Amino acid sequence: MTTTLETMRAFAQRAKAASRVLAVATTAQKNRALELLARELRAHVADLVEANAKDLADAKAAGKNAAFLDRLLLDPARVEAMAKAVESIVALEDPVGEVTESWRRPNGLEVRKVRLPLGVVLMIYESRPNVTSDAAALCLKSGNVALLRGGSESFRSNQAIARALSAALLGAGLPEDAALLVPDTSRESMLALLSLDGLVDLAIPRGGEGLIRFVAENARVPVVKHYQGVCHVYLHADADLAMAERIVVNAKASRPGVCNAMECLLVDEAVAAQALPRVARALVDEGVELRGCAKTVALLTAAKVPVTPAGEGDFGKEFLELICAVKVVPGLDGALQHIARYGSEHTEAIVTASRDAARRFTREVCASAVVVNASTRFNDGGELGLGAEVGISTSRLHAFGPMGLKELTAQKFVVEGDGQVR
Amino acid sequence: MTTTLETMRAFAQRAKAASRVLAVATTAQKNRALELLARELRAHVADLVEANAKDLADAKAAGKNAAFLDRLLLDPARVEAMAKAVESIVALEDPVGEVTESWRRPNGLEVRKVRLPLGVVLMIYESRPNVTSDAAALCLKSGNVALLRGGSESFRSNQAIARALSAALLGAGLPEDAALLVPDTSRESMLALLSLDGLVDLAIPRGGEGLIRFVAENARVPVVKHYQGVCHVYLHADADLAMAERIVVNAKASRPGVCNAMECLLVDEAVAAQALPRVARALVDEGVELRGCAKTVALLTAAKVPVTPAGEGDFGKEFLELICAVKVVPGLDGALQHIARYGSEHTEAIVTASRDAARRFTREVCASAVVVNASTRFNDGGELGLGAEVGISTSRLHAFGPMGLKELTAQKFVVEGDGQVR
Repeated sequence: MTTTLETMRAFAQRAKAASRVLAVATTAQKNRALELLARELRAHVADLVEANAKDLADAKAAGKNAAFLDRLLLDPARVEAMAKAVESIVALEDPVGEVTESWRRPNGLEVRKVRLPLGVVLMIYESRPNVTSDAAALCLKSGNVALLRGGSESFRSNQAIARALSAALLGAGLPEDAALLVPDTSRESMLALLSLDGLVDLAIPRGGEGLIRFVAENARVPVVKHYQGVCHVYLHADADLAMAERIVVNAKASRPGVCNAMECLLVDEAVAAQALPRVARALVDEGVELRGCAKTVALLTAAKVPVTPAGEGDFGKEFLELICAVKVVPGLDGALQHIARYGSEHTEAIVTASRDAARRFTREVCASAVVVNASTRFNDGGELGLGAEVGISTSRLHAFGPMGLKELTAQKFVVEGDGQVR
Repeated sequence: MTTTLETMRAFAQRAKAASRVLAVATTAQKNRALELLARELRAHVADLVEANAKDLADAKAAGKNAAFLDRLLLDPARVEAMAKAVESIVALEDPVGEVTESWRRPNGLEVRKVRLPLGVVLMIYESRPNVTSDAAALCLKSGNVALLRGGSESFRSNQAIARALSAALLGAGLPEDAALLVPDTSRESMLALLSLDGLVDLAIPRGGEGLIRFVAENARVPVVKHYQGVCHVYLHADADLAMAERIVVNAKASRPGVCNAMECLLVDEAVAAQALPRVARALVDEGVELRGCAKTVALLTAAKVPVTPAGEGDFGKEFLELICAVKVVPGLDGALQHIARYGSEHTEAIVTASRDAARRFTREVCASAVVVNASTRFNDGGELGLGAEVGISTSRLHAFGPMGLKELTAQKFVVEGDGQVR
């Protein structure tokens, strides 16, 4: 009898074989496949919506909530958005073959570092069908074979997308195995794939913290982790208050459910009496619930701004909703200490007019993005100019911050000489 | 009772706390610590040699072979070489704070990528005391706290080196915990350290394949792997034969026990009759035993060059001694296929005067270093101009090839604006 491990090994071996062909495909060929994928998605919109309707019906019957069903839903407008997202990858520069550095050695050897694909990338994500085409497109453009393992509730939708993908690859003269949907969504098959060191070159889990920890704890293959974002905004003593208010409101309230949203506001005690009531009131006006330290509660109560006392668990917490922890800190050192203790190394921001404070903050804070006088919400591949992203890494190995096409590559040394020996 | 895991967690927490201080230390401070380390090593040469003599006596009594004892040995000349190696790191550029890229977004945000240390790096190696000071110096210069876990047979030597390290750190005003010898060499404590995701940021095992596989299979923390080097040299139809002979002899015989030595010679069938006898004779003159494919055996037997038939196990094998597999291949495609099947993605070389062949070879071969018209032996941090290395990574994640100071860093995004929101 064939075990799951054997089945998954054979599956990953097909991917590995295809990865050797994809790694040397031309940019024109990869772009052609992307254009065909967009065309296939549009041509088969009815099939996609039909497959998705079955997934949706099952998910409803299983009692999934409205937010879950909304993430799962495909309608013609969303399929069009998927096709457009795929087309947008065509315009991005192909990272493969890029020479990132080059130099000459005293003995005449010419050395350069050249980008190459990672190989086979296992994408693990939840029931969001658009991630299937997004991830496939990013992997394809960067020369990587994507193994696509979405949530079980979206399996039929993903199968329909995978058919479009397969037709697009063949149409561009690329191996059909150059992007593959994992044929079942059991935990067992995921564990098998995560054990295949040497066949799967990288696993990228996206989704809730539970899923990511499960992958990180069970993988034998390298994993780039995307843990939670416990992001702070620190209002320094020299902050411009109008700017501070605008940034804080945007960081907290523009989209509270995402990882680059602010979860905790730090206010310098030198300006707390003046700044905190104003900024806090602006947050409350946006429907934000404030949970403050003792000093915050005293100041806001006096100013008649609603606030509740924060419990210790409120600092370092990723609320992902319209709740904000607030703390008055004794200057820049206090802010740095708080962030080092409670931050998640995702995104940290300072609002200040002081060049010295900005310099110290950007130098001393360890986070994938350190922001001065702008919203934490800019820690995003699109916003930072990477074009698109497969996620935001909060581990420092290989990639730290948004992972775009370049972060899906490695670099090899190419050494050219005229007969040199040691 | 305190468990090994608890003890090691407390130990790693000390390292993590120190890493926050070391991460923002100035280059001058780190260089001062390196200079003091060299001075301390020289000042305590007698203590080092004495501690080492005890390690040596135990290793001899345990029946270790001459090569093992030679790697373990410290004498005044070797201590001086260690001190000089530490001093050589002073001259290397500090990677921390380097801006590797920067750009401006349409909304005026200024984005740059800035190098920062990885944090806490666990170095796992065998009984070679010089690795203790080398690894400590590279980690220190790159702002990383080194956890030094050498082989048990060198423990007393390593303790003596660690005392010098500790004095040097304190002398430079850095935390004593900024480089730490793991206090015991049990497998249990190594396993405990390898489980501390979030405290240990990277493990770098150096040594035999068994040790590296053990670390890779048991680690919950990221590992950069340094597996074997099964390196090929391919003599293309357009190779200059004098150059080919020089490169092949150097690649195989200059130091056969290292990972960048050639293990297999590939000869294009178009020139095999002419090239193979000459090159093979040069190898035999250096004492190399040849194991050839059927065509090789026929050609060399006719030319009266000693050769034995290769078994299938001889291709893809890391001999690490004066043995060389030899195969006649049907052109560039045959060479590429052989390398894809049997190579270890370490170092692959081509000898050719053809620009097209060199272009295809460098583009299509996946290896940490792809070499044209030079010896495989150049895949080395010093030779390629990285200054020094902690090892050669054969995994594509994070680093591929020699790992120098830059490869011991991550990059964060620093984003500066004047009030931008989304």
